[in-house]
Amino acid sequence: MTFPTVSLIGAGPGDPGLITVRGLKLVQQAEVVIYDRLVHPEVVQEAPAEALRIYVGKETGLHYVPQEQINALLVSHARQGLRVVRLKGGDPFVFGRGGEEAKALVDAGIPFEIVPGVSSAIAVPAYAGIPVTHRKVATSFAVVTGHEEGGKDIASRDWATLAATVDTLVILMGVKGLAKIVDHLLSRGCSPETPVAMIHWGTTSEQHTVTGTLTDIIAKATAAGLEPPVVTVIGEVVALREHLQWFPEVVTAQHETLQEMRIRTPRPDETGIAGGTVDDVDSRTRPARTHSQEVP
Amino acid sequence: MTFPTVSLIGAGPGDPGLITVRGLKLVQQAEVVIYDRLVHPEVVQEAPAEALRIYVGKETGLHYVPQEQINALLVSHARQGLRVVRLKGGDPFVFGRGGEEAKALVDAGIPFEIVPGVSSAIAVPAYAGIPVTHRKVATSFAVVTGHEEGGKDIASRDWATLAATVDTLVILMGVKGLAKIVDHLLSRGCSPETPVAMIHWGTTSEQHTVTGTLTDIIAKATAAGLEPPVVTVIGEVVALREHLQWFPEVVTAQHETLQEMRIRTPRPDETGIAGGTVDDVDSRTRPARTHSQEVP
Repeated sequence: MTFPTVSLIGAGPGDPGLITVRGLKLVQQAEVVIYDRLVHPEVVQEAPAEALRIYVGKETGLHYVPQEQINALLVSHARQGLRVVRLKGGDPFVFGRGGEEAKALVDAGIPFEIVPGVSSAIAVPAYAGIPVTHRKVATSFAVVTGHEEGGKDIASRDWATLAATVDTLVILMGVKGLAKIVDHLLSRGCSPETPVAMIHWGTTSEQHTVTGTLTDIIAKATAAGLEPPVVTVIGEVVALREHLQWFPEVVTAQHETLQEMRIRTPRPDETGIAGGTVDDVDSRTRPARTHSQEVP
Repeated sequence: MTFPTVSLIGAGPGDPGLITVRGLKLVQQAEVVIYDRLVHPEVVQEAPAEALRIYVGKETGLHYVPQEQINALLVSHARQGLRVVRLKGGDPFVFGRGGEEAKALVDAGIPFEIVPGVSSAIAVPAYAGIPVTHRKVATSFAVVTGHEEGGKDIASRDWATLAATVDTLVILMGVKGLAKIVDHLLSRGCSPETPVAMIHWGTTSEQHTVTGTLTDIIAKATAAGLEPPVVTVIGEVVALREHLQWFPEVVTAQHETLQEMRIRTPRPDETGIAGGTVDDVDSRTRPARTHSQEVP
């Protein structure tokens, strides 16, 4: 018997318009959709009404459905001859454990394909007006997590060397973990004036960015009550936000900035998901909390 | 007068199905499309027949249209009240000079939006069966280019420290530049057995991957005649390709491997661009060379 292909799909960083054309098409043809907490509900709704939807979301640090069980779900449904779609936030291979799921499918002799997604590590900074690379400012960037193994990863990594070696450092981690990293960086001689941005729920209607320096960012983020999902950017590119900020944020300290942003905001008639059953209302300003980031 | 929003869109890494839903929709509504060499022709064809198409491609190292002129094209067409789409390979902020174009629009008072794309740095390895992160193998990756400034960037960067600090190193660079980096890594004590993969025209019908170690990769890549665009991955994750390889490649050394891959290949009826005028033929196996990567 030949099995249908299981698709491991990156749903993108939050804005439902950032799923790929191929990813959306596969969702629309799915018989089984196995999805994470951080996948936007509108994307899951694109599956046929009769499709089986299985939620395997992981809350912060707490795995409701163990990875082995997710792997088993993929295999068992594929073996029933069903078209299985596995929807993950961001990109399936960027801290998404997509490699483990692919391996489980290989071991079971089930064909699969990877549908890469727009990674939060790049797109969330972009929505905050921060290019991870910029000519003459940054020709390299690194993306790091450390959440999975608790504090161990944070202590074992040489953050100061990393920060000194790449131009832009993107960290997918909560505020508590970041506080330890910032301490480490400062104690190891990183300039206290190094610009830092922390972006909460990036690319969604709840996006909120806090900027500062290594010296004050943790205090500012704590005062703002930032909780995961947060993407942190460390490096000179953060300063570009002053010019390039374009996406309107719910919470903005300076009213002037908010008004400035409005003239750079996409018009409602230019937004929404194309070609799907999702309507063309501007998903970027709707109030619903959206859920689709790679959290470590 | 208010100007329409200029959209800076990442077209993705090559496979036309990897453009985002929002990116495709904006192309389909464009009045002016300004596009790079590495954007897949099928994506450009999605623009309305009457849309003005402006090619500003850059051949290897040679800029046919200087960046300042591209910036001026964006501004002048937007000032005519036209909907301008700027299509770039990969992601506009990953070595795409999107930041400079956004800055030019800000300076001209023209609203813009960024539509992030699937980055070649992550998706090309994925199509070669290499996850840039993998639990217990890699919890960090760095992406580096060095092409823009010729040899200067290569010499000035501390590649050995970088390779020692991140788990996976992704380099967007041609074979010649990579040879210098490999020499540097070996002379600085990197293990000669470090796995390396070089992927040519990744995610397209001409994808071709050469794997080896730091010791032999340059000889192998030279023998295979690899030319840009090439994405290189250095790190233990490369070994996962042995299990996870899923996308069929034109050139395959081992016939057994090719046959193995076939059973993991998506079926033709499951592929193609959704919701567009592009037909549903399997774009992944069509012969046409496809052109859409971030080349440094």
